[in-house]
Amino acid sequence: MKKIKIGLIGFGTVGAGVVKVLNEKRASLKASTGLDLEIVRICVKHISSKRPVEVAKDVLTSSIDEVLYDKQIDIVVELIGGIQPAKEIIMEALRQGKHVVTANKALLAECGAEIFGLSQKLRLAVGFEASVGGGIPIIRSLREGFIANKIDLIYGILNGTSNFILSEMSEHGTQFKDALLYAQKLGYAEKDPSFDVGGIDSAHKLSILALLGFGVFAAQDSIYTEGITDIEQSDIDYASENGYAIKLLAIAKRRKEGVELRVHPTLIPKTHLLANVGDVYNAIFVRGDLVGDNLFYGKGAGSLPTASSVVSDLVSVAAGIAAGVIPCITPVAGTASAVCDMSDIRSRYYVRFTVVDKPGVLSKISGILGNHDISIATVTQKEIKSEKPVPIVMMSHEARESDMAAALRIIDELDVIKSKTVCVRVEE
Amino acid sequence: MKKIKIGLIGFGTVGAGVVKVLNEKRASLKASTGLDLEIVRICVKHISSKRPVEVAKDVLTSSIDEVLYDKQIDIVVELIGGIQPAKEIIMEALRQGKHVVTANKALLAECGAEIFGLSQKLRLAVGFEASVGGGIPIIRSLREGFIANKIDLIYGILNGTSNFILSEMSEHGTQFKDALLYAQKLGYAEKDPSFDVGGIDSAHKLSILALLGFGVFAAQDSIYTEGITDIEQSDIDYASENGYAIKLLAIAKRRKEGVELRVHPTLIPKTHLLANVGDVYNAIFVRGDLVGDNLFYGKGAGSLPTASSVVSDLVSVAAGIAAGVIPCITPVAGTASAVCDMSDIRSRYYVRFTVVDKPGVLSKISGILGNHDISIATVTQKEIKSEKPVPIVMMSHEARESDMAAALRIIDELDVIKSKTVCVRVEE
Repeated sequence: MKKIKIGLIGFGTVGAGVVKVLNEKRASLKASTGLDLEIVRICVKHISSKRPVEVAKDVLTSSIDEVLYDKQIDIVVELIGGIQPAKEIIMEALRQGKHVVTANKALLAECGAEIFGLSQKLRLAVGFEASVGGGIPIIRSLREGFIANKIDLIYGILNGTSNFILSEMSEHGTQFKDALLYAQKLGYAEKDPSFDVGGIDSAHKLSILALLGFGVFAAQDSIYTEGITDIEQSDIDYASENGYAIKLLAIAKRRKEGVELRVHPTLIPKTHLLANVGDVYNAIFVRGDLVGDNLFYGKGAGSLPTASSVVSDLVSVAAGIAAGVIPCITPVAGTASAVCDMSDIRSRYYVRFTVVDKPGVLSKISGILGNHDISIATVTQKEIKSEKPVPIVMMSHEARESDMAAALRIIDELDVIKSKTVCVRVEE
Repeated sequence: MKKIKIGLIGFGTVGAGVVKVLNEKRASLKASTGLDLEIVRICVKHISSKRPVEVAKDVLTSSIDEVLYDKQIDIVVELIGGIQPAKEIIMEALRQGKHVVTANKALLAECGAEIFGLSQKLRLAVGFEASVGGGIPIIRSLREGFIANKIDLIYGILNGTSNFILSEMSEHGTQFKDALLYAQKLGYAEKDPSFDVGGIDSAHKLSILALLGFGVFAAQDSIYTEGITDIEQSDIDYASENGYAIKLLAIAKRRKEGVELRVHPTLIPKTHLLANVGDVYNAIFVRGDLVGDNLFYGKGAGSLPTASSVVSDLVSVAAGIAAGVIPCITPVAGTASAVCDMSDIRSRYYVRFTVVDKPGVLSKISGILGNHDISIATVTQKEIKSEKPVPIVMMSHEARESDMAAALRIIDELDVIKSKTVCVRVEE
């Protein structure tokens, strides 16, 4: 039986999960797959740190070179995250003839073209099932299961932290700030939560899905990205009264001219399957021309779900090594669609204005909207007996993004407007 | 570029879908995978029948031998369904050194051990993604994505026809009979719907999932199978009042002693993701020790979704042929768990008695239940001003199946009982 030797770089939450899984399941995986996966080296920052799982002392090293230039190592697993030094580690591992498995969504989103370009040239595998959706086998499903489909639409709840916060706000009436604090207390949000609540993590993952579904390399800065920090409890309430939930969606949508790629809070009907995805769960809705609508749901993060995906890649790559062939086809941006300009998208909008309660305000606002070709579907203004500014909530018919942006720029300059207007796109 | 030659046996709904997909997408698949998939022979009953898709005249044949013994054919796609002659066709195709792709769940459920046994011996592939869940990539996900997981639980809504009927009953208050007629009118149910509404189709699919998840070969007659024909509108209403939906579930559950395999109508909380799977959709809920809870949702039948899965198998097998290795590992019943005896399972139960409305009836029934160690959680008896028999609806605490069966046998003999008692298991 062929022993496949693995070098791990990074021994944090996911790394510890991978070690634990291979410690406990090496024998059963050997029985079911005929492959013997052995971790021979783990590169860590501090050798003496306490670890949640047991490893032989001589496996640990603080020298990356002892992984990259160890000739016995077949597969390098990169789990340190971030762009550098992760990028140089992966590129050098490939140059050294090693296959790579990674969970690094930021790196693949930013430098996927280079990394996949090199791996293809050298005929080596890059496994990245763990980079999107934690334990959900979405990469495999898009690459293999749906291979015969033209993908028309992907909606993803790809960030567990944001989904947890929005779920808390929606189920318990919690304010954003408190929901974030609670998420941090539970370990669901980092001290600096900006990547998660700012939508950047979702955009990284969307970039990877867009490569598989639409054949386009899109770095995060080419994806319109808006987080959930402006969403207030009242927005969730108004949305709910109108039959909608608010979710942070990563959206990839095929259009004639190319593909729309965007991440933003979105009103979706409560009857949509995604509306009922709560807690830290992830879900990805995929529409293909043959399969129609599909949904994948599961834990999008965490040590063991992510390790499950890393090990599934290790098995695929190892099977290829054992058979003497390139283990998996790396994605090609063959059908490369262009990314559409955000200002050209069309959408319905939920808009909440904060205004001084005096005659003529509504007519002023709706006049400006009308001048920009935006027609109003519903308006809600509740009687509030106070001197404070009051909210006016509108749902528009379909309008052009650039028109809405222009109208709001003018409206937000009016002296009757007391805070920045909140505008959330709607998907039906 | 290697041309992979395919022989199709059966040209019905799914066969026509496969031909259509390969007609339209052969070039784009060639570009994305480097594989050229060509259908060189289609075996049909009547050559002169009208077809919904175009094929070259000389591709059609009515002789199976012209597929099985054509040396140029690499892969045989079996799409005629049923046990014979499908079984002999597949076995002979393997003996002739051909790989096989099939959507035949009944055959794999009944004769999987033989077919997979032969394919393993001969080191040939049998692809069967299309046999469960139509276009949903559930086979691939269980075999590869979750390879490192111990699967603890599978709940499947695996039969679109039954799900459509139950959804109609629940959403529109339709009676079973009318919902079935409507399903037949829409082409969702066959003239003889017994395989679908009787749960047999679900049991076939569960057998395949059980092989992948639990390593057990279980023919349909070793799976407890109960259909939806006894469910009345009132059961759906009572369930709903208690916060439950009724779904036809195929259940595989790991226990210490083995694996529970059963198909029956089931009360599940309305908040469960499966409760909101409507229409003809399928969904499969999988719990693994690493990934936790996952859900896969999509179209479980139909020409194009099923063809999508057949073609995904064709690509995998063809890639293996091109690389010169066995394309995919056929499942091994290596960890072979035993199938648990149905009488040993424990469950909560929903029970509807139809009784004569006179004093002492409730006490008689509850006495018999108590004697069988069944304790009652809730009772509903509504006042009905008529001479007709009245329903008493109970939800039990967890009880043993054999105790419930014994109690109902005695209760149904009572002269105050006017129809066979309806008993539906509950999963939380």
